[in-house]
Amino acid sequence: MKVAIVMGSDSDFPIIKNAIKILKDFEVDFEVNVISAHRTPHIAEEFASNAQNNGIGVIIGAAGKAAHLAGVIAAFTTLPVIGLPIKSSTMDGLDSLLSMVQMPKGIPVATVAIDGADNAALLAVQILALSNPDLQQKLHKFKKTMADEVIKKDLQIKEEVKLLCKN
Amino acid sequence: MKVAIVMGSDSDFPIIKNAIKILKDFEVDFEVNVISAHRTPHIAEEFASNAQNNGIGVIIGAAGKAAHLAGVIAAFTTLPVIGLPIKSSTMDGLDSLLSMVQMPKGIPVATVAIDGADNAALLAVQILALSNPDLQQKLHKFKKTMADEVIKKDLQIKEEVKLLCKN
Amino acid sequence: MKVAIVMGSDSDFPIIKNAIKILKDFEVDFEVNVISAHRTPHIAEEFASNAQNNGIGVIIGAAGKAAHLAGVIAAFTTLPVIGLPIKSSTMDGLDSLLSMVQMPKGIPVATVAIDGADNAALLAVQILALSNPDLQQKLHKFKKTMADEVIKKDLQIKEEVKLLCKN
Amino acid sequence: MKVAIVMGSDSDFPIIKNAIKILKDFEVDFEVNVISAHRTPHIAEEFASNAQNNGIGVIIGAAGKAAHLAGVIAAFTTLPVIGLPIKSSTMDGLDSLLSMVQMPKGIPVATVAIDGADNAALLAVQILALSNPDLQQKLHKFKKTMADEVIKKDLQIKEEVKLLCKN
Amino acid sequence: MKVAIVMGSDSDFPIIKNAIKILKDFEVDFEVNVISAHRTPHIAEEFASNAQNNGIGVIIGAAGKAAHLAGVIAAFTTLPVIGLPIKSSTMDGLDSLLSMVQMPKGIPVATVAIDGADNAALLAVQILALSNPDLQQKLHKFKKTMADEVIKKDLQIKEEVKLLCKN
Amino acid sequence: MKVAIVMGSDSDFPIIKNAIKILKDFEVDFEVNVISAHRTPHIAEEFASNAQNNGIGVIIGAAGKAAHLAGVIAAFTTLPVIGLPIKSSTMDGLDSLLSMVQMPKGIPVATVAIDGADNAALLAVQILALSNPDLQQKLHKFKKTMADEVIKKDLQIKEEVKLLCKN
Amino acid sequence: MKVAIVMGSDSDFPIIKNAIKILKDFEVDFEVNVISAHRTPHIAEEFASNAQNNGIGVIIGAAGKAAHLAGVIAAFTTLPVIGLPIKSSTMDGLDSLLSMVQMPKGIPVATVAIDGADNAALLAVQILALSNPDLQQKLHKFKKTMADEVIKKDLQIKEEVKLLCKN
Amino acid sequence: MKVAIVMGSDSDFPIIKNAIKILKDFEVDFEVNVISAHRTPHIAEEFASNAQNNGIGVIIGAAGKAAHLAGVIAAFTTLPVIGLPIKSSTMDGLDSLLSMVQMPKGIPVATVAIDGADNAALLAVQILALSNPDLQQKLHKFKKTMADEVIKKDLQIKEEVKLLCKN
Repeated sequence: MKVAIVMGSDSDFPIIKNAIKILKDFEVDFEVNVISAHRTPHIAEEFASNAQNNGIGVIIGAAGKAAHLAGVIAAFTTLPVIGLPIKSSTMDGLDSLLSMVQMPKGIPVATVAIDGADNAALLAVQILALSNPDLQQKLHKFKKTMADEVIKKDLQIKEEVKLLCKN
Repeated sequence: MKVAIVMGSDSDFPIIKNAIKILKDFEVDFEVNVISAHRTPHIAEEFASNAQNNGIGVIIGAAGKAAHLAGVIAAFTTLPVIGLPIKSSTMDGLDSLLSMVQMPKGIPVATVAIDGADNAALLAVQILALSNPDLQQKLHKFKKTMADEVIKKDLQIKEEVKLLCKN
Repeated sequence: MKVAIVMGSDSDFPIIKNAIKILKDFEVDFEVNVISAHRTPHIAEEFASNAQNNGIGVIIGAAGKAAHLAGVIAAFTTLPVIGLPIKSSTMDGLDSLLSMVQMPKGIPVATVAIDGADNAALLAVQILALSNPDLQQKLHKFKKTMADEVIKKDLQIKEEVKLLCKN
Repeated sequence: MKVAIVMGSDSDFPIIKNAIKILKDFEVDFEVNVISAHRTPHIAEEFASNAQNNGIGVIIGAAGKAAHLAGVIAAFTTLPVIGLPIKSSTMDGLDSLLSMVQMPKGIPVATVAIDGADNAALLAVQILALSNPDLQQKLHKFKKTMADEVIKKDLQIKEEVKLLCKN
Repeated sequence: MKVAIVMGSDSDFPIIKNAIKILKDFEVDFEVNVISAHRTPHIAEEFASNAQNNGIGVIIGAAGKAAHLAGVIAAFTTLPVIGLPIKSSTMDGLDSLLSMVQMPKGIPVATVAIDGADNAALLAVQILALSNPDLQQKLHKFKKTMADEVIKKDLQIKEEVKLLCKN
Repeated sequence: MKVAIVMGSDSDFPIIKNAIKILKDFEVDFEVNVISAHRTPHIAEEFASNAQNNGIGVIIGAAGKAAHLAGVIAAFTTLPVIGLPIKSSTMDGLDSLLSMVQMPKGIPVATVAIDGADNAALLAVQILALSNPDLQQKLHKFKKTMADEVIKKDLQIKEEVKLLCKN
Repeated sequence: MKVAIVMGSDSDFPIIKNAIKILKDFEVDFEVNVISAHRTPHIAEEFASNAQNNGIGVIIGAAGKAAHLAGVIAAFTTLPVIGLPIKSSTMDGLDSLLSMVQMPKGIPVATVAIDGADNAALLAVQILALSNPDLQQKLHKFKKTMADEVIKKDLQIKEEVKLLCKN
Repeated sequence: MKVAIVMGSDSDFPIIKNAIKILKDFEVDFEVNVISAHRTPHIAEEFASNAQNNGIGVIIGAAGKAAHLAGVIAAFTTLPVIGLPIKSSTMDGLDSLLSMVQMPKGIPVATVAIDGADNAALLAVQILALSNPDLQQKLHKFKKTMADEVIKKDLQIKEEVKLLCKN
């Protein structure tokens, strides 16, 4: 099963790259699409309706402003759909967040932080890992690496503080 | 040309009645539908795609929370779509408002006040009146009646203030 | 029938240009005015009262902060008035949006996204197209072009992703 | 010079009564009007344009939602205009507040708290008191009375706490 | 694999019942726990660390105010964690939503709507259904039932409108 | 050293009772005052200036709306001042919270949750416990009791769920 | 009578200059002070208590974040106090606005727009003009000049639009 | 007793430096740690559980976005925990603030302003000063110095205004 990333506009691509990096690091198969819920609604419907048959397991829908993309996709599939709200030029991402997370009863969208592309990808990996022991192991290793990095930063900052206190 | 009111859930009906009253008073032909952008997406598409051929001139889309309905309809038609954000049990209507009004470039939704069903209907009438002198006249009369009511309320309040000041 | 764009301050002009571009592309007749609801209220009243007689079909009112312009114009006309909230230096556009969209019963303002000048113009075109088959056709073509652009962007991004994955 | 209270709708009257009580207590001459910036714009203009000649010194404009009333009045007069934002059924008063307080350069509205009718009236009294030593004295007395009431409440609460601690 | 529902306080139970109903209807095995991230942090850690070994596949963390529960659980497991923000007595649920959804890089929480317990459960079912064809089928049937209910409501409302228009 | 609770208005008393209960349970000496930063500013200054000499160790300042009380007290003392924002009839407590927590550089106010009187008192106890081993022990016991209550609630809810699932 | 401008921090001075410019243009006597409600509370009290005796008629209090300055001054005087909320580095000015405008019953602060220094000064002039016919005349002239500037801008923009449409 | 500063990410260090400066100026012993509530939860628990035994008196927890750090630490200690919300790239700090301040009953976090590192440190000093007369004296001196700086700035600005008025 692969992960499908769908972004509502190519302007979301710089954010999306963080998701791609995670998926590559976890060696999870994925595809990337630009599909607009409003400008190419037929393609959105077709994509979502056929996703499962096309070997997709999880869909990440990324969009800004009145961010309907993830909800529209979720309407046409029973696959888990992850919503990635993108901050646009006004309202500091609150519009995208509320448009994605406040889905009505029956059609959930698993929403992550505004511009949180890494977490969208990680959540997809966590979901796929439920039936993939290899991925599960990689997730444990990833958690370990993250912890090690924090510990390393802790030592670095402690050094910086020492220098700061000497002056 | 008639007005189509579409609500995302039958729970929006008490608000919608205020729109129906306006359309009845203006003797504008209308239809009322319950269509969910997420639960009946095929019906939403079909409705919007055929709206113009079915003699509809303006569409009012009413929905709450992550209110995608008006935007989804607008994706499938070139008719003007009026967005009516409905206040739900959390966020005081802000989620519905932002989900409707912050539409991306290319697909406008003409958004009115939260729970502002009267104004959604009036806006529909104003649009149809552009090519309907009879409606135009009714709108002028409506404006006149509203003014008269304010003037009447002004006199009533002045009486109440007089009484208040006597005590 | 032509479209009248009214902006509350000449500082809104860079945003307004996006509306002008749309109207030019659709070959819709239009005029552009700087009128302040607060600094030139008599001109606002005169403009709005005579709009219909001057061949105007739809009015776009653009303003920021306590954005009263569209509402004030709507008070003096029965033409559809489109509200375009402009983001100013504080509050990220929320003040302009709420001042425009939350109109009281009886006087609707058809509000579009903050800084959404393109959509304000497109909404005006959609309204005029109701009685103008030529405009209607152009709208269908516009929708087609938008879809084609998304499809093109989809291919471009897919190429970029391929390159990204090679490295 | 008298104070003119203008409310946008008679539904604001229960809040307005708190302002009336203050003005009566200070024996300041006042009048109360229901004038809608949007439904009776001509009356609003006429009222504001003639206010000074009619012996009015300060105007209180009370309105909810997209609360344009105070700003519209301020456009037609150089008298100080006090804005009283009224909380309506959605947005908890934030829409009224921002629509009143965020006035553009050149046309100030002296905004008080949401539903803060007492303070709107007190501010009017403070302004008139600048050239009225009698009012000034009453204000000092009012301040003293308020302080005495707080001191009295302090004693009452201390008694209640004592009882509470006995149990 | 079963679903574990964890709520931060027993006062969240009325909302949680909507999730239980869904899980029962889908015949998904589940457990319900009251665990506080702040008052029983050791239990939270123990629960999360052993979840996978205890046969849990997906965890739903429900909490209000500064809703840390889902994030704290996610820190100790690589299972997908669904965040269910509960509206409390102030801030209309915005505090719970932001505390859950804005998770930092590396530790995703799949957030659903404020008080959206049904969708939290449905999302859990969708995730488990990826490796459970029987659940997948039930999800398709559920989607069909939801659509049928909307269609039924549409007919009911159309009848009500007819009656309304007769009067 | 005792704790001084200061509330801006006697209408805050129902909330304050939760703080009193905590302080009584911990057998911490305390006093309760009604002092308004705006209506009795001289008393506020006097209170704050003399607090330390009067044996006060920590001050809790509770107020709503433009909640200046804690900040004003903090201006006149070097004792730690805890800010307790009270929710009033508009803005859902956000005004009180921001007015208290966003203090400028140099004059901190230790702000707790909106209406969080228990936590204001607990924080005061935690501060006093730094030099009071007896209080420290009581805090550990309190933490233990809280945990036990959660564990008890967990069992109760598990019973309720069992009953729910039988039906 | 003169206008006293009080700013909470010298960092507010760039904004304050817009108020100074207005007062200079109207030839109104004024003074400028840096007084902190929290860092120099005794000076704030002294200033406010003596303001009237020092020939001050109106006070403008400018501050950011938890902006208590205007409210603290208003506590010690019966002169009208104008609140000028200054936008700081977080919360986009909302904290300053709410801290100023949401004053409790009895102590009004006449709040203007965030960073709206010009309007703070104009409001002060309007208040003083009530007993100063010369200032009143200048205000009428100022209003006329503002209108003329809008009319001039209207012509300029119309020229720019013409050029734009030629290309 | 020393102060422990804990930051959730090394990217918070530029803000934290303002706290370090204060602690150095007051000659208070302190340590600085990078500990993530989510990436190194075991270290967070260990740190918090042993803090008191390690001679720590007050803990400052600084974090952004869904800022759980201070709350998670508070779960494992009875020491006073100061929450320092850090503004991140979206939501202007509101997410961090609400995630910290809205703590549930029983586990207080003493929250200061967004990015208010100086005040976090000062609050820590104020708490330690309760049993440290030397620190108390330094706090009085600090308050005096702050006042002197405001007075100095007042004179400087008055000079600048004089120059401004000459031109």
